[in-house]
Amino acid sequence: MRNRRFTELLQTGAEQWVGQEESPYEQQPLGIEYPFFEPEILVERAQASFEQWRKLKPAQRAALLTEALDGIKDRFFEIAYATMHTTGQAFMMAFQASGPHAADRALEAIAAGYEEQTRFPEETRWEKPMGKYNLALLKTWRAVPKGVGLVIGCSTFPTWNSVPGLFASLVTGNPVLVKPHPKAVLPIAIMVAEVQKVLVAYDLDPNICQLAVDAADRLIAVDLAEDRAVKLIDYTGGAQFGEYIESLKGKTVFTEKTGVNSIILDSCDDLDKVAQNLAFSVSLYSGQMCTAPQNFFIPAAGVRVNGELVPYEDVVQALAAAVTGLANNPKVGSHVLGAIQNSETYARVQQLTLDGSRSILPHGTVAHPVYKNARTCSPCIHEVEAARIEQFSQELFGPIMLVIKTQDTQESIRLAAQLAREYGAISCGAYTTDEQVKEQIMDQMSLAGTPVSFNLTGSIYVNQNAGFSDFHVTGGNPAGNASFTNPEFVIKRFTWVGFREPAPTMVE
Amino acid sequence: MRNRRFTELLQTGAEQWVGQEESPYEQQPLGIEYPFFEPEILVERAQASFEQWRKLKPAQRAALLTEALDGIKDRFFEIAYATMHTTGQAFMMAFQASGPHAADRALEAIAAGYEEQTRFPEETRWEKPMGKYNLALLKTWRAVPKGVGLVIGCSTFPTWNSVPGLFASLVTGNPVLVKPHPKAVLPIAIMVAEVQKVLVAYDLDPNICQLAVDAADRLIAVDLAEDRAVKLIDYTGGAQFGEYIESLKGKTVFTEKTGVNSIILDSCDDLDKVAQNLAFSVSLYSGQMCTAPQNFFIPAAGVRVNGELVPYEDVVQALAAAVTGLANNPKVGSHVLGAIQNSETYARVQQLTLDGSRSILPHGTVAHPVYKNARTCSPCIHEVEAARIEQFSQELFGPIMLVIKTQDTQESIRLAAQLAREYGAISCGAYTTDEQVKEQIMDQMSLAGTPVSFNLTGSIYVNQNAGFSDFHVTGGNPAGNASFTNPEFVIKRFTWVGFREPAPTMVE
Repeated sequence: MRNRRFTELLQTGAEQWVGQEESPYEQQPLGIEYPFFEPEILVERAQASFEQWRKLKPAQRAALLTEALDGIKDRFFEIAYATMHTTGQAFMMAFQASGPHAADRALEAIAAGYEEQTRFPEETRWEKPMGKYNLALLKTWRAVPKGVGLVIGCSTFPTWNSVPGLFASLVTGNPVLVKPHPKAVLPIAIMVAEVQKVLVAYDLDPNICQLAVDAADRLIAVDLAEDRAVKLIDYTGGAQFGEYIESLKGKTVFTEKTGVNSIILDSCDDLDKVAQNLAFSVSLYSGQMCTAPQNFFIPAAGVRVNGELVPYEDVVQALAAAVTGLANNPKVGSHVLGAIQNSETYARVQQLTLDGSRSILPHGTVAHPVYKNARTCSPCIHEVEAARIEQFSQELFGPIMLVIKTQDTQESIRLAAQLAREYGAISCGAYTTDEQVKEQIMDQMSLAGTPVSFNLTGSIYVNQNAGFSDFHVTGGNPAGNASFTNPEFVIKRFTWVGFREPAPTMVE
Repeated sequence: MRNRRFTELLQTGAEQWVGQEESPYEQQPLGIEYPFFEPEILVERAQASFEQWRKLKPAQRAALLTEALDGIKDRFFEIAYATMHTTGQAFMMAFQASGPHAADRALEAIAAGYEEQTRFPEETRWEKPMGKYNLALLKTWRAVPKGVGLVIGCSTFPTWNSVPGLFASLVTGNPVLVKPHPKAVLPIAIMVAEVQKVLVAYDLDPNICQLAVDAADRLIAVDLAEDRAVKLIDYTGGAQFGEYIESLKGKTVFTEKTGVNSIILDSCDDLDKVAQNLAFSVSLYSGQMCTAPQNFFIPAAGVRVNGELVPYEDVVQALAAAVTGLANNPKVGSHVLGAIQNSETYARVQQLTLDGSRSILPHGTVAHPVYKNARTCSPCIHEVEAARIEQFSQELFGPIMLVIKTQDTQESIRLAAQLAREYGAISCGAYTTDEQVKEQIMDQMSLAGTPVSFNLTGSIYVNQNAGFSDFHVTGGNPAGNASFTNPEFVIKRFTWVGFREPAPTMVE
């Protein structure tokens, strides 16, 4: 696909062909070009397609979209390589996250949308006793889609984070414009092409689902978002632009912004297993996951392991050793860490200075067996003071791990909950063998709208979220106002409208 | 209850006793006083009660609230007279709307809240095949309430419009502050007292549900709404304050504001029956219902009645005659029209001037058999030009009926849909015997988020909305962002939060 035009899309009359992607593994342009359209053309075509799409039954739309997923399934390997060479994810993760796991979440959105739209009867006979007779009305209801949807993607998870909104808007009858991050277009372009292919196979307008790319000198997200015809916006990305999106009037908006994720270490059975699990979590895709842990709260007195207190410093060193061990293991390191998506993230790690902090582990490079020019970086660890919340209350995106020495677990819980409430959090990991402490963490983190994984060891990690099972982002803290896929995520995309008329008299 | 303190509330330590209600039937103060508390005291007590309330199970809260409705049921007559002498509703309507119909909507909110909170399993075992073994996690979920709720009531429907939000917030675990309109406190005060009675009977904090009244010189709605601890707001009232409420950051807001409701007259079987039905709709509570029709679109060529075209002017005169007949019928008039809640509404009718319009029927007074001093007003009818949309695109609250001569039914539909989309609408009535026209109206009004009643004659009216059946306000146009009671109305009051941990190994 390199160094040529991506011609699979069924959108006609491109004004120019544009492309800005480059591989974090080669640090070279991919040379793939996509058709560019002015925002008003995209919106106009979406509006025109709305007339067709909204009149299908929910079951018809669900069937068409499921068929599109079937087509996408056959392209999981292409999508995996496309994801690897735009996001920097290692191959295995790129395959899982952008392929089957993203398709899981898309299917979840289709299923949830279908369920909600068919939840109330299409028609019923309503009777009201009036004494000597009953008043009778025939009542019918329609789930009415809101209008044109816009999905704004991010550079690190171009399909996983975009398909829930894309498929949720589509299944509820809204045409969608997919505006990918200009550095990560190909994975979602393949998916959009597959959706268009199915639409056309059933004589429907391919503009029901359009790719809306930026040109290098013409970013179109704001124009699209502010267009009066755009009623729904799904956004993944930085907090500042996310808050702007949330502030737009007359739109229904679903956001995933940024958060600071905490690990609370209280007590455990096997410290080495805990350290290995956590080292994997911070290393996975070099900390470029919205669910990656950043802040590790450890009591000054240490962590109780199998009844014995392991001193604070020993716990810190165990974590550092596990991180180093993973990064330096040639059979594991690069396959877990992958590459750094963009040079700003790399610069952030290199230039990080936290006044008064102690460096526990410096970052390093990770040799890649294939791509000698890969932009890699192993995690650094800094110890910051619990009193200096301004140092750990922001998301430091990338392979950066902060250790915070607390007075005790109570302070750890208080800080983790406060950070989540005030600055947002998407995940939380906790290690405790004390049932009361566990309940307290559940209670406090639930009020902060943050899911908690307890005592994970082995091959399941705090960063991982499964479709049909884990609500991703709860909507209950500043990290985002939406959740994959709770009922709210689909029902806000349409309106229930009822109709009534005198019912035909019943004949006995 | 008159001329004394309302001492049933279990909120202690009132700073002063205040009351501003007066009967529209006597135009005299009721002399009832309620305990006043500063907003920070109210919020502090609500927050303290949250710890208790949020920890109950949804089923426990639903049971307690249903028991409160049982207590409220025994006070329907008190609530009816309280509503009559604050809102000006006639007795029958005051009884129905504030009593059983309000309780229906409260029960609907309880049921919907219970259903949504128990929709996902509390606990499940999740397994992921890993080849030679399965990964297993124990996953649990909690529906976490958002925090303190605030319900801001209106002067015309003090219980019907407030109990859905009140009971929806309570059943989902949020303590609630009920801030009634200062002119219509008693009906909802009785309900709050009944809720408190049940709470205390089960050793719970009565401050889980507090009455929060304004003092004459101290309006507290803004202070309460802007308090950081207040997370949920239900509002019924004017558009301007409603838009301010919707603009508040960090709040989940449910509004019912204002709309302009249309009647589309195309064709029918019996014009007299249609005119009688519509005359009742505009006269019911003197047009002071959010669902009352205001704009009557009639084609210039007239209305086809049983295949024959009845000229435009004959249709207009038939409507006017039916309105006059109802108002002048001593056995019906005052029992349907009731009284005018406040003098501003009365002044609006008296002072209404619409440049270039034609007066079809002037307003008049309606003698009341009991209350000689009642503030009454029969509907006026003005004919305005279809081109002057600025004359009929605002809600003219009260007994004001506008007739708009259109080129044809197509223009009627276009205008009704445009008004609903751009200015909001809560109801729409249409009369047509043509299936294609009917489908066109359903299609266009559904896109404008407006329910339509077709061909109503006899004793069912476009203004009436039934619990468990009619979605009241759709949320799909500027008349409001919420709906009684769609799933959205309850699920936005809590957050789904998940927890997971390694599952105990299964033993075969």
